[in-house]
Amino acid sequence: MNETVFRPVAVIRTDFPQKFGVPRQSGRVPSLVGRVVFLPAFRNPDALRGIGEFSHLWLLFDFSLSHRGEWSPTVRPPRLGGNTRVGVFASRSPFRPNPIGLSSVRLLGTEETAAEGTVLLVGGADLVDGTPIFDIKPYLPFTDAHPDAACGYADAHREDRLAVECPSELLSRIPEPKRETLLACLAEDPRPSYQEDARVYTVSFAGAEVSFTVSDGTLHVTDIGS
Amino acid sequence: MNETVFRPVAVIRTDFPQKFGVPRQSGRVPSLVGRVVFLPAFRNPDALRGIGEFSHLWLLFDFSLSHRGEWSPTVRPPRLGGNTRVGVFASRSPFRPNPIGLSSVRLLGTEETAAEGTVLLVGGADLVDGTPIFDIKPYLPFTDAHPDAACGYADAHREDRLAVECPSELLSRIPEPKRETLLACLAEDPRPSYQEDARVYTVSFAGAEVSFTVSDGTLHVTDIGS
Repeated sequence: MNETVFRPVAVIRTDFPQKFGVPRQSGRVPSLVGRVVFLPAFRNPDALRGIGEFSHLWLLFDFSLSHRGEWSPTVRPPRLGGNTRVGVFASRSPFRPNPIGLSSVRLLGTEETAAEGTVLLVGGADLVDGTPIFDIKPYLPFTDAHPDAACGYADAHREDRLAVECPSELLSRIPEPKRETLLACLAEDPRPSYQEDARVYTVSFAGAEVSFTVSDGTLHVTDIGS
Repeated sequence: MNETVFRPVAVIRTDFPQKFGVPRQSGRVPSLVGRVVFLPAFRNPDALRGIGEFSHLWLLFDFSLSHRGEWSPTVRPPRLGGNTRVGVFASRSPFRPNPIGLSSVRLLGTEETAAEGTVLLVGGADLVDGTPIFDIKPYLPFTDAHPDAACGYADAHREDRLAVECPSELLSRIPEPKRETLLACLAEDPRPSYQEDARVYTVSFAGAEVSFTVSDGTLHVTDIGS
């Protein structure tokens, strides 16, 4: 069966230059704002005509940091503590035979820029800065929304959040409008699995390096550098 | 920015050998059953481990009948009568810069077969027979379901359905379990736009050729052949 070649139409700009720390699903941190910047060949305002009528959009994107030559039939979801294997088609892991990501985001508005044409502002994106976007589709609730769908293991722990303690002298190093967003992302527990150790982790966010440890269900920010 | 090559992991088998007549969104006709058959290289039961915990799945597929060399920034959605243009990124048209389709389907069960390994049975699929599937993901309601999302023009006419009249001697040529499904698909109004004309249209369904006309909001089946 034939292969198909896809080329990005846009990239998203977010505050996460690296994968570590990005919330694990879209919408977990609604205040995370991303900018969808079209590539020059797709910078055509006609292609967006009517998009403002929709409150939510789908982004189909390239899990560009998760390309591997081989595919593994099973993955270990962080939700299950990183110890239990499930089938790759029963997970949203980025490590997939075709590494296409799917995220619904809120359309916050559009921005007309001289340098980049019309830019889409979206909320809740769980994407790394620079992620290539293959497609943007309007969200259609009458066909896309199944609020009562069963989701098995994925439902476990999903309301678990960490308490976050961050000394105000450290937090003041983050631009004011982004402070609450950072704290909300940290509360999501960026660690690869629910482990108890004394390790210092570092998340890159909005140009800062945020270091933390976790103990007894509380995340302690230990440093914010640049 | 780099292109990415995707190869199908599966194909879907449905009762629609052609595009004409396929419901325009997933879930419109829940009784439409499709069989997702994995290609030999991906026929690994481990890759499906745990999938039965989910009631709904996403299919990311190739709009394989809609490949074009060029992309058009605007399309004319049938929902708007086929006369009004909207931006391609504000529509779910198959004619897109990257022709990737997105459909949520109900997971009805799995079938163990000697010839094709584990096959997924799905309900509500709006896909042409033989459509290549790039990815299968579990539906996660806590991140994918936005029942109150606004969807502008797409909301118009969506409860419009045609009355369908089909003489029982014609309908009896369709296998009994598929009769109601056929009638439900016809009620969706397969015509390319809301036009009033005397034309005879023909839908291919489950090995039969179903001819009809439409007048005054009623679809009249005029013949069912093979």
